[in-house]
Amino acid sequence: MEEQTFITRLDDRLDTAAYADVDASMNGLQVGTTNGHINTVAVAVDAAMATIDIAIERDVDLLLTHHGLSWGGIDRVTGREYAQIESLMSADIDLYVSHLPLDGHCQLGNAAGLADYIDLNPDSRTAFGELGSVTIGCRGYLDDSVATETIQSRLETLHTDDQSVQVLPFGPDSIESIAIVTGSGADWLDEAAATDVDAFITGEGKQKIYHEARELGVTVFLAGHYATETFGVRHVAEIIESWGVETTFINHPTGL
Amino acid sequence: MEEQTFITRLDDRLDTAAYADVDASMNGLQVGTTNGHINTVAVAVDAAMATIDIAIERDVDLLLTHHGLSWGGIDRVTGREYAQIESLMSADIDLYVSHLPLDGHCQLGNAAGLADYIDLNPDSRTAFGELGSVTIGCRGYLDDSVATETIQSRLETLHTDDQSVQVLPFGPDSIESIAIVTGSGADWLDEAAATDVDAFITGEGKQKIYHEARELGVTVFLAGHYATETFGVRHVAEIIESWGVETTFINHPTGL
Amino acid sequence: MEEQTFITRLDDRLDTAAYADVDASMNGLQVGTTNGHINTVAVAVDAAMATIDIAIERDVDLLLTHHGLSWGGIDRVTGREYAQIESLMSADIDLYVSHLPLDGHCQLGNAAGLADYIDLNPDSRTAFGELGSVTIGCRGYLDDSVATETIQSRLETLHTDDQSVQVLPFGPDSIESIAIVTGSGADWLDEAAATDVDAFITGEGKQKIYHEARELGVTVFLAGHYATETFGVRHVAEIIESWGVETTFINHPTGL
Amino acid sequence: MEEQTFITRLDDRLDTAAYADVDASMNGLQVGTTNGHINTVAVAVDAAMATIDIAIERDVDLLLTHHGLSWGGIDRVTGREYAQIESLMSADIDLYVSHLPLDGHCQLGNAAGLADYIDLNPDSRTAFGELGSVTIGCRGYLDDSVATETIQSRLETLHTDDQSVQVLPFGPDSIESIAIVTGSGADWLDEAAATDVDAFITGEGKQKIYHEARELGVTVFLAGHYATETFGVRHVAEIIESWGVETTFINHPTGL
Amino acid sequence: MEEQTFITRLDDRLDTAAYADVDASMNGLQVGTTNGHINTVAVAVDAAMATIDIAIERDVDLLLTHHGLSWGGIDRVTGREYAQIESLMSADIDLYVSHLPLDGHCQLGNAAGLADYIDLNPDSRTAFGELGSVTIGCRGYLDDSVATETIQSRLETLHTDDQSVQVLPFGPDSIESIAIVTGSGADWLDEAAATDVDAFITGEGKQKIYHEARELGVTVFLAGHYATETFGVRHVAEIIESWGVETTFINHPTGL
Amino acid sequence: MEEQTFITRLDDRLDTAAYADVDASMNGLQVGTTNGHINTVAVAVDAAMATIDIAIERDVDLLLTHHGLSWGGIDRVTGREYAQIESLMSADIDLYVSHLPLDGHCQLGNAAGLADYIDLNPDSRTAFGELGSVTIGCRGYLDDSVATETIQSRLETLHTDDQSVQVLPFGPDSIESIAIVTGSGADWLDEAAATDVDAFITGEGKQKIYHEARELGVTVFLAGHYATETFGVRHVAEIIESWGVETTFINHPTGL
Repeated sequence: MEEQTFITRLDDRLDTAAYADVDASMNGLQVGTTNGHINTVAVAVDAAMATIDIAIERDVDLLLTHHGLSWGGIDRVTGREYAQIESLMSADIDLYVSHLPLDGHCQLGNAAGLADYIDLNPDSRTAFGELGSVTIGCRGYLDDSVATETIQSRLETLHTDDQSVQVLPFGPDSIESIAIVTGSGADWLDEAAATDVDAFITGEGKQKIYHEARELGVTVFLAGHYATETFGVRHVAEIIESWGVETTFINHPTGL
Repeated sequence: MEEQTFITRLDDRLDTAAYADVDASMNGLQVGTTNGHINTVAVAVDAAMATIDIAIERDVDLLLTHHGLSWGGIDRVTGREYAQIESLMSADIDLYVSHLPLDGHCQLGNAAGLADYIDLNPDSRTAFGELGSVTIGCRGYLDDSVATETIQSRLETLHTDDQSVQVLPFGPDSIESIAIVTGSGADWLDEAAATDVDAFITGEGKQKIYHEARELGVTVFLAGHYATETFGVRHVAEIIESWGVETTFINHPTGL
Repeated sequence: MEEQTFITRLDDRLDTAAYADVDASMNGLQVGTTNGHINTVAVAVDAAMATIDIAIERDVDLLLTHHGLSWGGIDRVTGREYAQIESLMSADIDLYVSHLPLDGHCQLGNAAGLADYIDLNPDSRTAFGELGSVTIGCRGYLDDSVATETIQSRLETLHTDDQSVQVLPFGPDSIESIAIVTGSGADWLDEAAATDVDAFITGEGKQKIYHEARELGVTVFLAGHYATETFGVRHVAEIIESWGVETTFINHPTGL
Repeated sequence: MEEQTFITRLDDRLDTAAYADVDASMNGLQVGTTNGHINTVAVAVDAAMATIDIAIERDVDLLLTHHGLSWGGIDRVTGREYAQIESLMSADIDLYVSHLPLDGHCQLGNAAGLADYIDLNPDSRTAFGELGSVTIGCRGYLDDSVATETIQSRLETLHTDDQSVQVLPFGPDSIESIAIVTGSGADWLDEAAATDVDAFITGEGKQKIYHEARELGVTVFLAGHYATETFGVRHVAEIIESWGVETTFINHPTGL
Repeated sequence: MEEQTFITRLDDRLDTAAYADVDASMNGLQVGTTNGHINTVAVAVDAAMATIDIAIERDVDLLLTHHGLSWGGIDRVTGREYAQIESLMSADIDLYVSHLPLDGHCQLGNAAGLADYIDLNPDSRTAFGELGSVTIGCRGYLDDSVATETIQSRLETLHTDDQSVQVLPFGPDSIESIAIVTGSGADWLDEAAATDVDAFITGEGKQKIYHEARELGVTVFLAGHYATETFGVRHVAEIIESWGVETTFINHPTGL
Repeated sequence: MEEQTFITRLDDRLDTAAYADVDASMNGLQVGTTNGHINTVAVAVDAAMATIDIAIERDVDLLLTHHGLSWGGIDRVTGREYAQIESLMSADIDLYVSHLPLDGHCQLGNAAGLADYIDLNPDSRTAFGELGSVTIGCRGYLDDSVATETIQSRLETLHTDDQSVQVLPFGPDSIESIAIVTGSGADWLDEAAATDVDAFITGEGKQKIYHEARELGVTVFLAGHYATETFGVRHVAEIIESWGVETTFINHPTGL
């Protein structure tokens, strides 16, 4: 596929323009030219030397990640930025980034993927996690209420290593309604409590979330920033495959 | 001691005014009147229902915490804020808060306390962790270089529960120079690498710190936000004791 | 009535959300919980010790005021704020505030009430007093033009004490069209002149309004900040009464 | 005197540059050229048609006022601004403005003049009324404490008409220490209370000052915006006289 | 024609209000009263002593210019501003300004006029030159492609003096598609390249436009700021003539 | 020389840190690593493909320019930025940038160089051209006054092509005092007039400078943005030579 076509299609499919004002990430093509061809694509959570090195080994044309290199602009192309960009350029690999568009998208996004993973009833889901004019999470109901430990066990299967899922068990013993913001979502616990959910799932915590959860009476699962954010890029890989482009998922957990 | 005298002394001793422009926390007296007497003081890391309830049980006159209730103003006294303030008022307990002044203080602060705990040579220490016009951490050398595991084990003794200290072991095997920002210090890893330390200790991580540490070649210890921030308030308790006021430390780990 | 129901109804009735971006006042519930019952409500212009003390004497469940305690956040709960909040809490009285929504509302607001009081023809009224996306006053015509002294005398009946209404008599002797912004409305005299009214009524002046009125040729009545702002809360009291909740008006003129 | 010399001397004497960052008023020459001669100067509180017309009658070369025409820039020279500027130009009268420099100056300023008027002991005075990096008022002690009514009567002699001085008598009956911010100084009542004065004198009030004064236990005198702000320009007139330039004071009370 | 009618008609015709938020120029009446009559109008590119002096010679009632005197407010009426405003006032000439409304207007604007001048096919034109919510240029096709020199020669006929048109000939030899932003339009070269035009015409350059044009492969014509901006005011003159008001064009090239 | 040493020395010599807050340009190393050796350096006015290509031909280790690639951050490494950075990286050439530090430096800067070129008396020079806390030009006197044409002729020798120097001859015929801001300095004409110079030299104009110069009575020379800004980098080349590093000047005039 021609690269310009590929990029335009992705921008459209992910509604990239709608997130431009609220996202510090420069979504879309971050490093590259638009005049080549895209035959193979690697997807990964993070753009970093670890994933770039694997992309080079796998000899792809483009790397698509959730976390990119430009957050409001690259001040200087030195140090880590030099090494990353130099590696991409010398291997002729372009970098396409989709941050908030891949969090909030109601079918493709990370929260949607995690909702599928824990069997939130699709018909019960609503947008959740307000950030300016967009939403970056989702909220819904299980078909039947389950014990806290059941959710915890399910979330622990996201991890291939021995990393545990941390639980702040301050909500009801039995959980039916759940709100999700993947990654670093602690700031949305208030919104979760205001919508009366039993539990809130996010990736990584902050110190303050402990007492908030305790006083709001909501159970919080900290399931891992990385672990909760592989869904989006893998969903996109499926779409890209359907366009006749070969894809590969680069898995590089951070333990965070 | 008269409360007004107590507060003025604390403000002076902690150099509270110097942090006013860079700290979202309203440091100093956050809840209370200044016309009572202070005979007993409880110190704690967090101002929250859990610690307020214990302060009430222990029948103190004032609670002094590192994390307070007002971060740039309390919009509404409803929900959690209502419960916290109402509990303080009905028990006639005042709340005094010292956030950044208790991070950066070179003898009393959290970073200084953690530096003592891991035996950073006092003469080798310099201010570290720039935030506007102040610093909030410290940096120094061990008398002898030690293995990564030695630091890890030492940090794990901060925890009374089974919480482990997470290590990103991307620096040299043997560690001699260390930078510290307690609590949530991931944003200062760049500064740590620029000063060529072997390792960086902070409380809680963020997803991005994994690849930064890996590419900068610095070992990172995530020792717990709560666990790294009990030093400051305990130091202050010693000072207050020396003024003839009875003190008590309320320990309420969050596991974060 | 359940408190949550009461608050939701009021927020809807006063269109509270529409004023959130332009009003420094945190409108809606400012102090309180939402899980009690509301049987008796006191309304007053100001939330202050004077009115809180009377609300306590009258043993109400909630105090509703035009001017509240939180203007962009309460930095510290000390001094006056401590005393006010402590009094409300110990008497278990909640505080609901409606500032700009009660100025601009075209039936319930202060300007509408004052327009009724001086017999502005209801059919002739239009919104007046632009503040960002909302309006906070009204404008209209008397059925017949009257002398300046007639308006002045009518406005002086707003006062129970000997406070006089100040007149800057720079417009035509005979007045037919009038614009109103209650409280502190001097900044809208320009808009009034641009719409060619004979007179402008507001509560309190500022030095500059004298020469502006003189040069624009508009008569200005300074009828008292307090005196022009009792209409809104009394209108709301009527609505609350209609819901089956007992109400009482706390009158505490300031002479300003 | 050459106009350029006159202006440079005034700018220096009043320390005009020191107030540039905190004052919305464009202090210094606001309307005029700098190549004429200054033989006669009129001083007045307000630059307005009323005072400009009298300046024209008195055939002066320059009008010096406390309140000018440009507050952060004149958007359009139309309406009132057209008339004022056209009148100045056609009469060849320049306009020099000194706003905050004439409030805060410790000998020449309005607050200093009012302090003299009520016999605050000169040796007891300190700067008061913080506004960014400058102060705009003063604070001091009477030689002997006096009754509230004594101060009130003294302040009423500022008025040539029947305007009364409003008193909010919430402080001690007998007054010894007083803080002053002339004009519109209600926002500094908190600072006055924090310095434990018995009374605060300002020009015009705002609704909120009533309850603040009541709860802070400070007596407030509202002595008139105009009436409290004639001292500064009259002091400057004396200085200008001493340079050999004829001066005249244009008195035009606003009743506000 | 009554002046108020004249101004209201112009404001409507030029859609002045739509540009208020993005234009530093205070468009509409900048200097004047609205109560006279308008019988003769001079139009010019710049409001300056040179054009004001000619307007006075030609004894007009109003001067209409593209560049006015108030860009975000006139801080002081001194120096050049004093002379300009004094000249206007003493000759009783008002000043009406239309900046961005006269750049972007699709029939009346400068870009539209220049597009006519070089024979861009009217049906092929689209809005170009985004500035916030408005556009300030246009873009279109010639009926047949022509040589670079042909465009250059045509643009040089804009100049009556010996000023040459500067060409950065980095696009194709033969030009068919052209984007235009008159005046100082260098910042829109990127947008021009993104729409794949062969050439970009603007008035004056900036150093950076040389390398941008070279690397983007777009030919740039710098045809003169003044020379490209006489179209708008001359178009407006035609409209004003049609209202029965006499008009005159003041031509005062700047060579820039 | 080791690259880290080279960069630290340059940063010190040019006082790079002093300009960090006022300069949009990210001065210092913009593209590169700091672990190589610097044996040969090319200096040029602009970082662009044209100069990068020549730097590659000349096989240098580092390119030092006045205008760099990062103005407040590089949003995306695509298009022109991709080509420029890719060329630098594949040829292993680093990019060091010095913008305002090379304008304002009183010996090394562009204005100082131009002052030398036109024989401004060194002892008569003072800093000129305020930009926040720094100055970016200089001001001084010729030993003898000369005719306008003499200065013009001297400035035209800056150009190797047929580009002429534009003169706005509105000052005195005979010129003795001159202010200089190289590049795009039109905004400092007011400051020049306020210091009473006969003439102002800058690189490129803006439309408004014509009438400003005319009304202020100052002669303006527009000597070319490029032509006035080669002095600084050539001065730095001399310093670098003195460190034992080979240098070469890449001359690529833009005609602007």
